[in-house]
Amino acid sequence: MITLASDFGSPYPAAMRGVLCSRSDARLVDVAHDFPRQDVRTAAFWLRELLPTFPAATHLAVVDPGVGTDRRPLAVEAGKHALVGPDNGLLMPAARELAGDAPLACYEIPVDDPESTTFHGRDVFAPAAAAVHDDGLDALDYPAVEDPVDLSFPEAAVADDEARGEVLVVDGFGNAITNLDGALLADRWGEYARVNGDRVPVARTYDAVDADERLLTVGSHGAVELAVNRGRGEEAFGVEPGSRVVLDRP
Amino acid sequence: MITLASDFGSPYPAAMRGVLCSRSDARLVDVAHDFPRQDVRTAAFWLRELLPTFPAATHLAVVDPGVGTDRRPLAVEAGKHALVGPDNGLLMPAARELAGDAPLACYEIPVDDPESTTFHGRDVFAPAAAAVHDDGLDALDYPAVEDPVDLSFPEAAVADDEARGEVLVVDGFGNAITNLDGALLADRWGEYARVNGDRVPVARTYDAVDADERLLTVGSHGAVELAVNRGRGEEAFGVEPGSRVVLDRP
Amino acid sequence: MITLASDFGSPYPAAMRGVLCSRSDARLVDVAHDFPRQDVRTAAFWLRELLPTFPAATHLAVVDPGVGTDRRPLAVEAGKHALVGPDNGLLMPAARELAGDAPLACYEIPVDDPESTTFHGRDVFAPAAAAVHDDGLDALDYPAVEDPVDLSFPEAAVADDEARGEVLVVDGFGNAITNLDGALLADRWGEYARVNGDRVPVARTYDAVDADERLLTVGSHGAVELAVNRGRGEEAFGVEPGSRVVLDRP
Repeated sequence: MITLASDFGSPYPAAMRGVLCSRSDARLVDVAHDFPRQDVRTAAFWLRELLPTFPAATHLAVVDPGVGTDRRPLAVEAGKHALVGPDNGLLMPAARELAGDAPLACYEIPVDDPESTTFHGRDVFAPAAAAVHDDGLDALDYPAVEDPVDLSFPEAAVADDEARGEVLVVDGFGNAITNLDGALLADRWGEYARVNGDRVPVARTYDAVDADERLLTVGSHGAVELAVNRGRGEEAFGVEPGSRVVLDRP
Repeated sequence: MITLASDFGSPYPAAMRGVLCSRSDARLVDVAHDFPRQDVRTAAFWLRELLPTFPAATHLAVVDPGVGTDRRPLAVEAGKHALVGPDNGLLMPAARELAGDAPLACYEIPVDDPESTTFHGRDVFAPAAAAVHDDGLDALDYPAVEDPVDLSFPEAAVADDEARGEVLVVDGFGNAITNLDGALLADRWGEYARVNGDRVPVARTYDAVDADERLLTVGSHGAVELAVNRGRGEEAFGVEPGSRVVLDRP
Repeated sequence: MITLASDFGSPYPAAMRGVLCSRSDARLVDVAHDFPRQDVRTAAFWLRELLPTFPAATHLAVVDPGVGTDRRPLAVEAGKHALVGPDNGLLMPAARELAGDAPLACYEIPVDDPESTTFHGRDVFAPAAAAVHDDGLDALDYPAVEDPVDLSFPEAAVADDEARGEVLVVDGFGNAITNLDGALLADRWGEYARVNGDRVPVARTYDAVDADERLLTVGSHGAVELAVNRGRGEEAFGVEPGSRVVLDRP
C-alpha cells in the first residue's frame, strides 16, 4: 500500500497517481492533498496524527517549498513503514510515531538531474515511492543520511495550577489544536477553566454549549482544543499556530 | 466493498481510511466528505440518491452532531447492503431505498466507553464497518434496535392544476432540488410553468435558456429542480431547503 | 483500470463510481472532479497533461455543456488507451498524446433515449466506460465517427528575438501556464526576460524571488509559466486564458 499526501490541491495529485500506477501494482490511498500550501509544519502535524492509523505502508508526502534548491529527497525507514518526501522535516514526526521503539534510518533518493524538473512529486518522489514499495529500502542501497532536517513540536509545561502550551495547528473547521494533553481536562467536564485569562466551559461536545459559544474540548488527537460550537475557535480565541495558550484553574 | 461518506472535510477522513485498511482488506470507495457540516438531513438525501448506484456493500456514513451524547451507534441490514453510522436518521432513507422489499434490521454497535473519544468515525464506526464487512451482521450478534431514529422526506401534494412541494436540498451548484416528481414537467418541455407565482421556462438543459436566466428542469434525481443557467437557482428563486414550491399551469 | 475526471464537484462523482463498481471490477482512480464548470478547453488541457502519466487504461471524462443536446457520446481508441466522454473536443488533445504514432479511432456510444436523463455521466458514460474496459472497443462494434469535434491548443510563434504565445490555462494557485516552450528560458536562469513589455526575473523556483514578486518559470508541463511567489500570477500579470504573452530579450 502507498499513501499519498501533498499540498498540491487539484489536479496535480493525479500525476503522482498515474506515475505510481505505471510503476507499481500497490494499492493507493489518499491521505489529503489540501494541506496549507508550503506549510511543512502543519502537514507534519497531520501526518503524525493520521499515518499511524494505517497498516504497514509506504507513505509518499510532498510539501516542499525547497523544490529546486539543494534540499535532499529523502526516504525513511520507520519500523514496518517507509516514508518518501523532501528532507525538510515533514516526514520526521510521523516517522518517529510509526517507528515506535525501532530506530529511524534515513536515505537520500538519488536524482540524476534535480534541476531538470520542477515537479518532484511526479518526477522524483512518486517513482521513488514505487521503488521503495516494490523493492524495499534494503535492496535499493540508497546512500544513508545521518543528519536529516528535523522538525518537532514543542512540549507544554505543566505545573500544579497552570499549564502553558501553544496552538500547533488550526483545522479546517477553525478548531485550534494545542499541545496541551487532554488529560488536563479529565476531571473538569461540565465545569469551567481559565484560558489565557478568560473563563470558558469545558465540554465533551461542541453542542454542549450554545451556538457561537466558546468551549474547551479534547479533540481526536487527545489534545486540548479551543473551539466554538458551529463557529471558528481560532477567531473567537484570537489565536493562530504558535499562539501561547495558558490554562489554569478558573 | 466499503463506501465512506462524512461531513469531515479534510484531512480527517484519512483516519477512517487508515483504520479500515488496518482491519479489513475491503475495497474502499469514497462517496463524499464535504456534506454540509452537521446537516443530517442533506446528507441523508444524498446517501439515498447515491448509494443505490453501488453494488452490495457496507456503507459507512458519519454526520453526527450528537457525538458524545447517548445517541446510539447503528448498523442497518438493508437487503444485500449494510449501513453503519449514528442513530440519528442519517442512514434510514438510503437504507429503505437499498432494501427494496426486504425488511430493515437495525442493531446497536456495542461501545465499551463511548466518552473515551470524540472521534467516533475513527474509533467506533470505522472499526464497526470493517467488522460488519468482514464478518457480516449475523455473526456479530449485535443487540437489535427496534426504534431507530427515523428521518423521511415530505411527499408533494399533487392535484389536477397544482402541485405543492418543497425544496429538499440545494446542491453545490445552487440547484434547488424539490420533492416534485419530474414527470410533472413531462409534456411541457419548451413551454412555461408557474412556480410560486412566477412564469418560468421548462427546459431539459441549462443552456436552453440564456445565461443567468431561471429555468425549471428535471435533475439526475428525477425531481423538479429550480435552476439558473450558469448561476445559482437558490438565490434567483429565493429558496432554501424547506421552502415551499407551488407549481401550477402558467 | 478506469480513471475518472469531471467538473461535477461533489457529491455527483460518487454516482459514476457506483455505476462503475456495479458493472466492472476495474480499479478506479480519480483524476479530478473540480475542473472549472463547463470549461471544456481547460479540462482538455489538464487531461492532456495528466493522462499520459497513467498506464494503459480507460479514461472516463465528462465536462459537458451540451448534455441534453444532440452532441454525440464518444469513445476513442488511442493506442493502448481508450477514452469515453462527450464529443465536444474534450478528449482529443489527450487522445493524441496517448496514441503517440498510432491512429485515433472514434466511435459513437449508442444511447437508446438520450433525453431520458440529464445525468449522462452516470447513465451513459459510466456504463459505456465499464463496457469499453471490460469488453474492449473492438468487441463492442460501436459505429465509427469520422468527424469528431476537435479541439487543439495554438502553437506559439518563435523568432530569433521574440516569442509570441498565449496563456492556455490558469492553475489553482494562479500560475498562468502558456504555450511557450520552457526551453526558451533554458540559458537565462537568474537573469531577466521581458514579458509583455515588463522586465521579470527568470527563476527555477518560486522562492528564488521575494514573496509577492513576479517571476517567469518553467512548470511541470515544460511550458513557461507566469507566476508570483506565494501569490497569484494571473492577477499580477493581468492575464487570463487566451491572453497574449510576448517574450523577448530584456
